[in-house]
Amino acid sequence: MKILYNLEELEIAKNEYKQKSIAFVPTMGALHAGHLSLIDRANSVAENVIVSIFVNPLQFGPNEDFSKYPRDIDRDINLLKSKKVDYLFCPNFTKDELLKIKQISAEPELANILCGKFRKGHFDGVVTIVNYFFELIEPDYAIFGEKDYQQLKIIEAMVNNLSLNIKILAAPILREASGLAMSSRNVYLNQSSRLKADEIYKNLSSISEEIRSREEIQGIINSYKEKFINSGFELDYLEYHWSRIFIAARIDGVRLIDNMPA
Amino acid sequence: MKILYNLEELEIAKNEYKQKSIAFVPTMGALHAGHLSLIDRANSVAENVIVSIFVNPLQFGPNEDFSKYPRDIDRDINLLKSKKVDYLFCPNFTKDELLKIKQISAEPELANILCGKFRKGHFDGVVTIVNYFFELIEPDYAIFGEKDYQQLKIIEAMVNNLSLNIKILAAPILREASGLAMSSRNVYLNQSSRLKADEIYKNLSSISEEIRSREEIQGIINSYKEKFINSGFELDYLEYHWSRIFIAARIDGVRLIDNMPA
Repeated sequence: MKILYNLEELEIAKNEYKQKSIAFVPTMGALHAGHLSLIDRANSVAENVIVSIFVNPLQFGPNEDFSKYPRDIDRDINLLKSKKVDYLFCPNFTKDELLKIKQISAEPELANILCGKFRKGHFDGVVTIVNYFFELIEPDYAIFGEKDYQQLKIIEAMVNNLSLNIKILAAPILREASGLAMSSRNVYLNQSSRLKADEIYKNLSSISEEIRSREEIQGIINSYKEKFINSGFELDYLEYHWSRIFIAARIDGVRLIDNMPA
Repeated sequence: MKILYNLEELEIAKNEYKQKSIAFVPTMGALHAGHLSLIDRANSVAENVIVSIFVNPLQFGPNEDFSKYPRDIDRDINLLKSKKVDYLFCPNFTKDELLKIKQISAEPELANILCGKFRKGHFDGVVTIVNYFFELIEPDYAIFGEKDYQQLKIIEAMVNNLSLNIKILAAPILREASGLAMSSRNVYLNQSSRLKADEIYKNLSSISEEIRSREEIQGIINSYKEKFINSGFELDYLEYHWSRIFIAARIDGVRLIDNMPA
């Protein structure tokens, strides 16, 4: 694993890897098994893997944990050595330097809800640094974890909006044995907080089960199926997928399809 | 509008348009206002617009309407002349010729439901011809209507899986005044079938409204919100989006996020 501390060293590395397919795993360090699973995914799709470690000041609000965000580069490097990682990019850009690069805005429709509502400007900081690293590294693939699902959606939208030729791959959440989603911030938890945190997964699982098992949608659909059939339609299907309702119906032998959000 | 009847004429056109941005609107002809809206969308994103008209035998099953599918190229050409269309590509590939091109399989997870369940092999035929036309035309954009929403999802997956550098744009369903989704196959409907067909939109709208107004999910979420708060969590949010349940919760000052499908 070659460690690249600055743009000059990255430039030299690019000359080495430019003929290869590249998968990029951006991180803020404080690596855990979740990050390592992203590296496995990266190795499964490309010849060379580049990991970055950079705690991005642009994505932290003034009252957030930028200064105390866990940092332990030596431990991280040792962890990365347990995997096939071709390059580690760990620059030390300052906030002032980053304010001079191209500032990108996150898609408002995606960024104004959930974490974006509580962390103003957070996702603008994320897409700005991710786009900058994409420009610098020019990867073919970039891997993001589904724990930061909103971030994943926003980066997919950015890649789409800017027509970047980079394939975004999503990797599933890794969890502790208790179900707690792995996170660099879990080190902040003391023993009793940790026990409390375990309730998150337990409750999410119950909510998920309750929502999935709801029969309301199927009930609505079944009553309309009956209605269509009683009116003389032959139904291929009347189904709910991707938050839309879909129909294929035959009328006097003519097959029609339609769908709408629901 | 230049009409390109074969690969040689397309090759000459490509030499003309290769420096321009290109939006491609694939159709099977029998054009209606829905298709014309795709052409408007195409003109809004690219310098040149290419429409194709080709009734693709690969996507019709043995008992389907390939031979009687409505064809009227002169009427179609006149309709296209009402719009800015730079090129019309209307080749006459035979099924035998098409069986010699690269055969693509549609993503099974997307293709085995809905229309794919009732039209075996249909989506394989679609992605095979669409990929072939993409290779021939090399567009920057391709426009697909949301009426064929499953097709849209399958083509997006194909572009993603094959890492094609083509941006897929979706355009909304256009409807007759009665609400019936515009379709080339509507010409098959006689007067009484047409009245019956109008019930599709009316019923889909009612289903959509009933599903959207359901309070069950919000009820489940509210009861869990209470539970979290009673356990001493500070909740930033507990919300349902994109068919997933999302949480951001603070425990003794540590902010944790998690999410899962629901």
